[in-house]
Amino acid sequence: MQLTRSADYAVRVVIHLAVLPPGSRATRETLAGLAEVPPEFLGKVLQVLTKAGLIISHRGSQGGFELALPPASLTMLDVVTAVEGPIRLNLCLATGEPCKRSWWCGAHEVWKAAQQAMTQVLQDATIEELAKQSIAKLEAGRLSQIDGGDAAWN
Amino acid sequence: MQLTRSADYAVRVVIHLAVLPPGSRATRETLAGLAEVPPEFLGKVLQVLTKAGLIISHRGSQGGFELALPPASLTMLDVVTAVEGPIRLNLCLATGEPCKRSWWCGAHEVWKAAQQAMTQVLQDATIEELAKQSIAKLEAGRLSQIDGGDAAWN
Repeated sequence: MQLTRSADYAVRVVIHLAVLPPGSRATRETLAGLAEVPPEFLGKVLQVLTKAGLIISHRGSQGGFELALPPASLTMLDVVTAVEGPIRLNLCLATGEPCKRSWWCGAHEVWKAAQQAMTQVLQDATIEELAKQSIAKLEAGRLSQIDGGDAAWN
Repeated sequence: MQLTRSADYAVRVVIHLAVLPPGSRATRETLAGLAEVPPEFLGKVLQVLTKAGLIISHRGSQGGFELALPPASLTMLDVVTAVEGPIRLNLCLATGEPCKRSWWCGAHEVWKAAQQAMTQVLQDATIEELAKQSIAKLEAGRLSQIDGGDAAWN
C-alpha cells in the first residue's frame, strides 16, 4: 500500500507555490526544478490540481501557476485527495456504508480507526506550516553557504 | 491508496482460523465459505500466509490449515505486512533512510507520522481480540435466530 507518485509530487509542488510571495506565479519549468518533479509527470499533476481548484493556471507571457487558496486553509490531506480521491484504506470502507460482514467481522472497525488516524495527521498538516518550514530550511541553507559551510546541501 | 484485496482476504482468513478451537484445522473449502474469500484468490493468500510462517498447511485426509502462532501474539499489522510487505505510505519512506529532500521539504515528517499513526492502530489490534469479537457476534446471531429474530443477519 503506497500513495502514488503523483500525490508525492503534488504535495511538493503545492509547498513550493506556498513558499512564493502572495500573488506571484511560478512557471512549469521553475516548479519542475524547485519541487524536483520530472517534467513528464508535472503536466498531469498541475492539471489535476488546477481542476480540483487548488491552484490557478495563468496563460501568456506573465503566466504561470499560483495557489488558489490561502496556504493556511490547505492541508496535505486536501492535496492527496485532490490527486487520489478519497482515502479508503480497505475495500470495506469504500462505500461509506456499514460493512455487510460486520455481523461477524471486527476488522472493519480497525481499518476505519487506522484510516482515521492516518488522515487526521495529514489533515493537521497545513501547507502554510510546511511552507514556513521550507523557508526556514532554505534560509538556513543559504546562511550555511555564506558562512562557507555546506552541510545543509549534502 | 488502498490495501490489496489479498490483505483484506488474509485478515478475514486469519480471524476465522483464530475462531477455531486450538489445534483444529480448516480446509480450504471451509475457509473460502466462512471468510467469504473467492476460491480463485484463496490459494494464493494461503500460500503467502504459510510462507510467512503465520499459518501451517497440513496435507492428507486430516489436513487443513491452522494458525502457526497463538492469536494473542498475532496482529492485523503482522497479517497485512505478510501479504503486502512493510507499509511505506510514501516513496520517501521506502528506504528507511532520511529523505534527501529533507533540507527543504517538511512533508517527509508528516508522511512518517501518518504512517506511524496508521500502523500503530493495526499493531494494537490482536487477532485474538478480533476472534473474540467474531465469536461473540456469531453467538449473538445464533441466539437471535433461536429467539425468532433476524436482526443480526440483515
